Amino acid sequence: MKKTALIMAGGRGERFWPKSRKNLPKQFLSLTDDGKTMIQLTVERISPMVELEDIYISTNKDYKQLVLEQLPGIPEENILCEPVGRNTAPCIGLGAMHIAKKYDDAVMMVLPSDHLIKYNKMFLGVLRDGCELAEKGENLVTIGITPDYPETGYGYIKFNPDDSDGHAYAVERFVEKPSLEVAKEYLETEEYLWNSGMFIWKVSTILADIRKFLPDTYEGLKKIQDAIGTEEQDVVLEKVFPEFESVSIDYGIMEKAENIYILPGTFGWDDVGSWLAVGRIRKSNENGNVVDGNIITINSRNNIIQGGRKLIATVGIEDLIIVDTEDATLICAKNSAADIKKVLENLKICNRDEYI
Amino acid sequence: MKKTALIMAGGRGERFWPKSRKNLPKQFLSLTDDGKTMIQLTVERISPMVELEDIYISTNKDYKQLVLEQLPGIPEENILCEPVGRNTAPCIGLGAMHIAKKYDDAVMMVLPSDHLIKYNKMFLGVLRDGCELAEKGENLVTIGITPDYPETGYGYIKFNPDDSDGHAYAVERFVEKPSLEVAKEYLETEEYLWNSGMFIWKVSTILADIRKFLPDTYEGLKKIQDAIGTEEQDVVLEKVFPEFESVSIDYGIMEKAENIYILPGTFGWDDVGSWLAVGRIRKSNENGNVVDGNIITINSRNNIIQGGRKLIATVGIEDLIIVDTEDATLICAKNSAADIKKVLENLKICNRDEYI
Repeated sequence: MKKTALIMAGGRGERFWPKSRKNLPKQFLSLTDDGKTMIQLTVERISPMVELEDIYISTNKDYKQLVLEQLPGIPEENILCEPVGRNTAPCIGLGAMHIAKKYDDAVMMVLPSDHLIKYNKMFLGVLRDGCELAEKGENLVTIGITPDYPETGYGYIKFNPDDSDGHAYAVERFVEKPSLEVAKEYLETEEYLWNSGMFIWKVSTILADIRKFLPDTYEGLKKIQDAIGTEEQDVVLEKVFPEFESVSIDYGIMEKAENIYILPGTFGWDDVGSWLAVGRIRKSNENGNVVDGNIITINSRNNIIQGGRKLIATVGIEDLIIVDTEDATLICAKNSAADIKKVLENLKICNRDEYI
Repeated sequence: MKKTALIMAGGRGERFWPKSRKNLPKQFLSLTDDGKTMIQLTVERISPMVELEDIYISTNKDYKQLVLEQLPGIPEENILCEPVGRNTAPCIGLGAMHIAKKYDDAVMMVLPSDHLIKYNKMFLGVLRDGCELAEKGENLVTIGITPDYPETGYGYIKFNPDDSDGHAYAVERFVEKPSLEVAKEYLETEEYLWNSGMFIWKVSTILADIRKFLPDTYEGLKKIQDAIGTEEQDVVLEKVFPEFESVSIDYGIMEKAENIYILPGTFGWDDVGSWLAVGRIRKSNENGNVVDGNIITINSRNNIIQGGRKLIATVGIEDLIIVDTEDATLICAKNSAADIKKVLENLKICNRDEYI
């Protein structure tokens, strides 16, 4: 069966400020040593399995130009621009309708555009297992990440260790971000995996489930599908899409559907959730500094320094994140990275939109 | 007797990098809340005692334009441009010759251009005492600062507490920068003051001493003096001045001469030796931050942040010096301020003159 992919690239992340901005979110930034952007890496990663013409990018129209520039091989009609954000269920439904318009049926992978994976071949192996399982029946397959530590910022998925085909496990339930105590319990049971937001299913399967669990959304999606390729395409999308209930695929479908399976992944996944991730994923020098740009460090250790042409000189500093852009410079203690959002709150309150 | 002043402004300080540069040293920077530059404050401070036309500025030709711009009231012919630096003895000799060309004799104050004084009226009182003592005889008067702590970066002056006219004390000797142990001993004796580099004497007195202790320099200075006001003035200066022995007034004259007196000063003197001084002399906000520019601070304490139009956002940082200029940004731990010179060394080694 034809393999297709929907890459979700509508995010407006704030955690990479000042490099990430409303008009340049994380998925369009390069945060790795190779200079490729997150979304370019995402496409490159699956290219051995999926033809470029079968890769769809879901984003919003503000980012269409960025997608065209960064992914010149993707056909323009595969760039699906949501008029407004309505969470992942309508987003995935829209992608599924486009694929269903093109093929009678197909396997559809749903992938975030802003995560990193270290071991691509292992990842492709998991995707292949997932495609096989999805093709075999009316199955919803999700990829779970074996937790390293009790992270409280991710959702978890409870599986049944006794119900497995050798690769995948039956899913019992999806759970929201837990407290630290609960997260620790999850790890001890060895029956919970992190929810990576990656899914595999047949287009026919997910559309049947949307029809069943979100019937109004399904009706709207059908209207949008009917208009694809006609002169009315954009008008219908602009009219119908904003009326959808804003609901996640996890809450709207996965928590209610049957035949849900999870494939555990141990392929070096990183959601690149903050500047601290750059310290993990990029090469550091002998002093533990990860530096990029025109930098002089004197007696400085374990810093993340992201500059450009401007000279940045550091003296006697430790454990700082320094990010310099044309119009703004961030200097943040590593253990305060979660508070970068307070800078953005401050900027919003003061209507200083030019920096957001 | 006419009161005149020579302000020494030839320094090329590196400690305020990246704001201070080879073409913009500390004396031409504003480091105080009032926005005035160090040299402007120096002139303003003595203006109740000395006419602008009797204030001479010793500098080098690279800075002549800066002096003209920052001190429009000073006559251009009072800006004495040394062709090369030859330390303070030739510098002061050149100033004395210019004043002697204008007046038969005069009291001459010698002042650094890059120190701050908090209590100007008290300072003027000390200067008046010094002028009186200088006028009274062939006396060399120096101003000493009552030490607060055993600083190892300053020279000290030993005085005789039993030989005083009520204001001034007889000087026994000048000593170089001491070790910490020696500096502590100096403080315990209560017979040592910091050498502020400020002097008061009659022009006739200092020229007689230069003739006595530095006869070759005196001969050269006479040739320069003869050419003042003629077409040959610049040519003679350019030819003769570079041949002078490079020697400080302390070593060349003060350590050898007689009739040396010191006036203790407690007028809130600060040599503004590093960015740390800015933390002392400028108003801090409720979090202990001294900020200037377009700054957002989140959970940040006791920092010195000097920016401009560019936004600087800090999160969770403490005890840092952050200085942003058009082409360079410094981020330095307060306790590493002395290492800023290592940045300059690095830039010199790499021939990156544009940043020096």
